[in-house]
Amino acid sequence: MQKLCLSFLTLFVLAPLALAGEPLPSWNDRDAKSNILQFVKLVTTEGGEHYVPPADRIAVFDNDGTLWSEQPMYVQLAFAIDRTKAMAPKHPEWKNKEPFASVLRGNMKGVAASGEKGLVELILATHTGITTEEFEHIVKDWLATAKHPRYQRPYTECVYQPMLELLAYLRANDFKTWIVSGGGIEFMRPWTQEVYGIPPEQVVGSTVHTRFEIRDGKPLLLRLPEIDFVDDKAGKPVGINKFIGKRPIAAFGNSDGDLQMLQWVTSGPGRRFGLIVHHTDAQREYAYDRESHFGRLDKALDEAAEHDWTVVDMKKDWERVFPAQ
Amino acid sequence: MQKLCLSFLTLFVLAPLALAGEPLPSWNDRDAKSNILQFVKLVTTEGGEHYVPPADRIAVFDNDGTLWSEQPMYVQLAFAIDRTKAMAPKHPEWKNKEPFASVLRGNMKGVAASGEKGLVELILATHTGITTEEFEHIVKDWLATAKHPRYQRPYTECVYQPMLELLAYLRANDFKTWIVSGGGIEFMRPWTQEVYGIPPEQVVGSTVHTRFEIRDGKPLLLRLPEIDFVDDKAGKPVGINKFIGKRPIAAFGNSDGDLQMLQWVTSGPGRRFGLIVHHTDAQREYAYDRESHFGRLDKALDEAAEHDWTVVDMKKDWERVFPAQ
Repeated sequence: MQKLCLSFLTLFVLAPLALAGEPLPSWNDRDAKSNILQFVKLVTTEGGEHYVPPADRIAVFDNDGTLWSEQPMYVQLAFAIDRTKAMAPKHPEWKNKEPFASVLRGNMKGVAASGEKGLVELILATHTGITTEEFEHIVKDWLATAKHPRYQRPYTECVYQPMLELLAYLRANDFKTWIVSGGGIEFMRPWTQEVYGIPPEQVVGSTVHTRFEIRDGKPLLLRLPEIDFVDDKAGKPVGINKFIGKRPIAAFGNSDGDLQMLQWVTSGPGRRFGLIVHHTDAQREYAYDRESHFGRLDKALDEAAEHDWTVVDMKKDWERVFPAQ
Repeated sequence: MQKLCLSFLTLFVLAPLALAGEPLPSWNDRDAKSNILQFVKLVTTEGGEHYVPPADRIAVFDNDGTLWSEQPMYVQLAFAIDRTKAMAPKHPEWKNKEPFASVLRGNMKGVAASGEKGLVELILATHTGITTEEFEHIVKDWLATAKHPRYQRPYTECVYQPMLELLAYLRANDFKTWIVSGGGIEFMRPWTQEVYGIPPEQVVGSTVHTRFEIRDGKPLLLRLPEIDFVDDKAGKPVGINKFIGKRPIAAFGNSDGDLQMLQWVTSGPGRRFGLIVHHTDAQREYAYDRESHFGRLDKALDEAAEHDWTVVDMKKDWERVFPAQ
């Protein structure tokens, strides 16, 4: 009975309170939270010195490590590995060719040893040669069944609850929220609306070349095994300019891949906001920064103080990490 | 007194009527108008067989010749010619180099004779080597003073009134309106919000490579003299997929440059709409199609009937062409 009452209290009293009166309920009352609240108040106060009209309230978010977990490896790499295994019967030559051979033997050190060149090869071989619509179905099917190896829940549930609240809070304040990720644009678009409330047209990412063809009278777009654009590091401001065409006023990242995006966004005129998620929580999530293979955070951490970027200490700043199951 | 009454009538009686009850007032009551109205009614009627939820109501518009005049030459070419003249003192070598020499002598046949290769060279030489922000200012400054040679009014007023009404009508019905143009994306973005009500992030166009740099401690994006993407012909469906990430349900064009976009959009499942503006009005605007150098309309006109695309006869379908001065 007591439990039932508590549930009742949570559902009908506390939850609406949180929604209406208290934004960011999963953020502890520390600097990171108050910095966000203060920034939003400043740029949305009409008549105020720092007021920004809604059309210019653009906020950009990195995805891997900022909105969802990127450990023990990028989700898209887990996808490429599963695709390699699924496609292997039709590619007998992969048994003797790196990085495919290492993938098929489950030798992750061998995969890592193939370096960035090997990774690109793996991605291109498993992500192209099919139409854009076929690829979309494959991504959706995979996400429906694949599970995070540690949490044993779908990857789309290994997203950060505090960041979901932040996205919703910004949108409630007439911000337009965008993803600007090094990941493949067509790997993200099939699910970002449902998971983050971000529609496909507000996702910026890396792209492969595609070719328009008419096959049996039916127009289609074929994904080609050629990199078109890498939306990472110095590519992020380039991608923002290409896709959004405006300099955002707020940027959220977690690694050196976001350094130039943070520099570009926060050096514009007027009030700007930069934030770095620092993974400090080995117990609930992962603890990594300067030495990590995925999501290395080194230079951007050094520059944070100089640029007045907010650094989130995951362990201390987040009351919870993942959404309730 | 009579004139005053008429103004009063227009302002307070007719205008609200047009806004509230009668969309597309500059369209004559013919098939083109009723096709548009019927399509919008079908896809917005909840519970109807052809209903499309607002998130999927995406409409794409070509710009040159569809939203504004592209004769006697593309506006961006007029801009490149004026830029060539302005930059010439710093480029003495242009006096003996085509197509620059022809531009400086005002010999448009010589410019045309340099072909597509010459045009690209002209565009790159006059549009790059500066930052994205410098380019934006140059475009704005030019548009503020340049005038259309025939109409003697700013190019941004040589837009089609019926198409402005169509954009507004679609948005009033929860469509998201996009430009998908062969023109330079950064040549359009500085003014599309003001002129068409289309924000920069809903403009798809051709791009040059840009490079992120930090100069004197200040991050900037430098426009490089290299083509990144040509958003024309078979490039249009590619651009739509890259920037929007969804297949639109309606496409509006006027030339063979829009053929593949029309094919791609109207071959999707469910109710779709394709429309071609046919320039048939030499008196009020221009009359051209199969033989035109700018905006050639040949194959797309042949395919219109087969795909059930609506062909606008400018002379007969449009009650007026340009907005009141």
